Amino acid sequence: MAHALALGRRGMGQCWPNPAVGCVIVKAGRVVGRGWTAPGGRPHAEPQALAQAGEAARGATAYVSLEPCSHHGQTPPCTQALITAGVARVVAAVPDTDPRVSGKGFAALRAAGIAVTTGVLAEEALRDHAGFFLRVAQGRPWVTLKLALTLDGRIATASGESRWITGPSARRAVHALRACHDAVMVGAGTARADDPQLTVRGFGERRQPVRVVVSRRIDLPLMSQLAQTARAVPVWLCHGPDTRAGLAQTWTGLGARLISCPVDAGRVDPVALLQALGREGLTRVFCEGGGQLAASLLSADLVDELHVFTAGLVLGAEGHPGVGAMGIPTLAAAPRLQLVDVVTEGSDIHHVWRRGEAA
Amino acid sequence: MAHALALGRRGMGQCWPNPAVGCVIVKAGRVVGRGWTAPGGRPHAEPQALAQAGEAARGATAYVSLEPCSHHGQTPPCTQALITAGVARVVAAVPDTDPRVSGKGFAALRAAGIAVTTGVLAEEALRDHAGFFLRVAQGRPWVTLKLALTLDGRIATASGESRWITGPSARRAVHALRACHDAVMVGAGTARADDPQLTVRGFGERRQPVRVVVSRRIDLPLMSQLAQTARAVPVWLCHGPDTRAGLAQTWTGLGARLISCPVDAGRVDPVALLQALGREGLTRVFCEGGGQLAASLLSADLVDELHVFTAGLVLGAEGHPGVGAMGIPTLAAAPRLQLVDVVTEGSDIHHVWRRGEAA
Ligand SMILES: NC(=O)c1ccc[n+]([C@@H]2O[C@H](COP(=O)([O-])OP(=O)(O)OC[C@H]3O[C@@H](n4cnc5c(N)ncnc54)[C@H](OP(=O)(O)O)[C@@H]3O)[C@@H](O)[C@H]2O)c1
Ligand SMILES: NC(=O)c1ccc[n+]([C@@H]2O[C@H](COP(=O)([O-])OP(=O)(O)OC[C@H]3O[C@@H](n4cnc5c(N)ncnc54)[C@H](OP(=O)(O)O)[C@@H]3O)[C@@H](O)[C@H]2O)c1
Repeated sequence: MAHALALGRRGMGQCWPNPAVGCVIVKAGRVVGRGWTAPGGRPHAEPQALAQAGEAARGATAYVSLEPCSHHGQTPPCTQALITAGVARVVAAVPDTDPRVSGKGFAALRAAGIAVTTGVLAEEALRDHAGFFLRVAQGRPWVTLKLALTLDGRIATASGESRWITGPSARRAVHALRACHDAVMVGAGTARADDPQLTVRGFGERRQPVRVVVSRRIDLPLMSQLAQTARAVPVWLCHGPDTRAGLAQTWTGLGARLISCPVDAGRVDPVALLQALGREGLTRVFCEGGGQLAASLLSADLVDELHVFTAGLVLGAEGHPGVGAMGIPTLAAAPRLQLVDVVTEGSDIHHVWRRGEAA
Repeated sequence: MAHALALGRRGMGQCWPNPAVGCVIVKAGRVVGRGWTAPGGRPHAEPQALAQAGEAARGATAYVSLEPCSHHGQTPPCTQALITAGVARVVAAVPDTDPRVSGKGFAALRAAGIAVTTGVLAEEALRDHAGFFLRVAQGRPWVTLKLALTLDGRIATASGESRWITGPSARRAVHALRACHDAVMVGAGTARADDPQLTVRGFGERRQPVRVVVSRRIDLPLMSQLAQTARAVPVWLCHGPDTRAGLAQTWTGLGARLISCPVDAGRVDPVALLQALGREGLTRVFCEGGGQLAASLLSADLVDELHVFTAGLVLGAEGHPGVGAMGIPTLAAAPRLQLVDVVTEGSDIHHVWRRGEAA
């Protein structure tokens, strides 16, 4: 199962809106087939593993990181493929919470006389599929927030200089994080100040994450890298209802996709924003700031995981704050996160935190 | 020698203005005597170790973490004690840079026919004696700065609430740090907002560090814990030249010591402040903030080691900044520190940084 989970992770960020599933077929103690959800979400993990196993699948055990699907979607159901292949036993990590599957996959397998075990490495699987499950349950993607900070919590100088606070090793870790998310998201301030590309670089050919910019009026520079590359890699602009029509047309003409969201207190409403991204199929969103968007997400309790890169320099109180105004009156009212991991990346520290009690 | 260094560290924060030295006497592979500089700086490590060894010291090897003293101070010279005891060999980690010793100790031993080796575990010893050497070379103590920060670099809410950002385990680590420094220092803002005790608690009976408060006009609350306990544990107020005479008398009456320093741009000049503390004999000062004093020390490049405790909560931009205004225009102009260590303390992270290239 650990192997199936590891295979599944290869699809992370590549196969939305589908879950990133891994499958291993084992016959007489030997792995005869391996598969994971392909880029774009199809084919699924099971048929690929079964194809690799061929005749060896007969009487074999299939380990899958998620309950196999039982409905006719754009692919035939995986349960049918497992039955047809003559698999004797299916071991699944967790049931699929998608109402179209939810237990029906296991029922179909059992009805065909296949032995079914579930709950193996369930905790790991729940974490791997958290984005997919969150979208099913709450309609929003999993949100990972990244902050690259000075020792005193600054993300840029007063004048907006932020390149580079962290070193090459931390920056490579950020690209690895981008790679396992469906989308990379920034606020308009960051898009304006940094003219970022927000692509995954240094990891070979791959499906690039969608680039999301949150800006009420989309008054963003038209000569920016995002604007100029919107045809090559998707750019989605999440804006308010009061965008100038001409500007919207220009951006659409450049290849960007416009997603309208309600505005609350002059800002794109963060809850509605994530619901909209969930509707578009995103399961894992990587937010890279800036400070205002980070504050907005944290205030609305929408950050599931926080990755902080702390660099050994100090900018003082005039520096641009890593997290903007939140209006928190007391320590008791401050959002608390639990430490999950801390490692060094070159000369920087990389620490990971999760919401609430999760550890 | 590692043993001698470890013994020496027991005296850290206890024996200023003297260095915290450790001594181990070894005869035929057996430890026959151990000593370290006593609280208050006397007796020195060597006579204590020799006394423990007694007759066994004859023909033995003495390991000392610093060159033995050769001058008649308030104690007779340790070189004489080693010679009288009939030690055959002295192994020292590093020479003493104090001009009254500096090589004269080794010379005296050699003149008496004792074999002398030096430079053993020199790097560790240089670090252990850094405060003592710094005071000899530059007239100022070693400065360790501590910051207990939220994930976004805040030390308190906008209204000044800072208890508790970090957990019990981090707070205990802070007491351990206080214990190995000669003095604990805070800015007037912290003294006013927190009414701190600044004593070492939970480590048994020990010589308490001096409590230093930096305040231009010493308009600090007279009913504070510091004021009320100034007779029991020293309180030094470092102030500017324009203190009201009545206030100075009141504080002296309470048992505090007043140390006058020049003022620069309305603030006690940090360079002069540390020179004054060096003149008073301090070799290791532990600064616990607040944000303004931290900024002042960092700006003047006076922080030798920085201990950051990062807690898993977020306060947003209205929170009190962990490091105050520094007027740094560009990233290139920001002070850079090197990561030395990172550990978890309960639910917090404890990371240690040192100035410049040191690693
Ligand atoms: N070190 C790092 O990791 C890092 C990362 C990112 C950024 N930065 C630095 O941070 C600075 C930019 O940060 P920032 O705080 O000014 O800007 P930001 O958070 O990137 O963007 C804020 C802008 O986003 C728009 N917005 C729309 N809805 C929002 C919502 N719900 N919450 C927040 N913003 C919303 C608003 O602009 P509209 O008026 O267009 O709606 C707002 O002014 C730059 O200097 C950049 O270099 C550093
Ligand atoms: N979480 C933590 O680790 C922690 C630690 C300490 C403090 N805190 C919080 O931090 C807040 C206090 O911080 P703060 O930044 O306001 O005050 P601060 O740095 O403690 O004190 C600043 C004051 O010190 C005096 N001062 C004199 N010379 C100075 C110099 N060279 N540099 C700086 N200050 C000098 C000035 O007052 P005069 O006018 O009297 O000269 C100045 O207003 C409190 O809310 C406290 O709770 C938190």
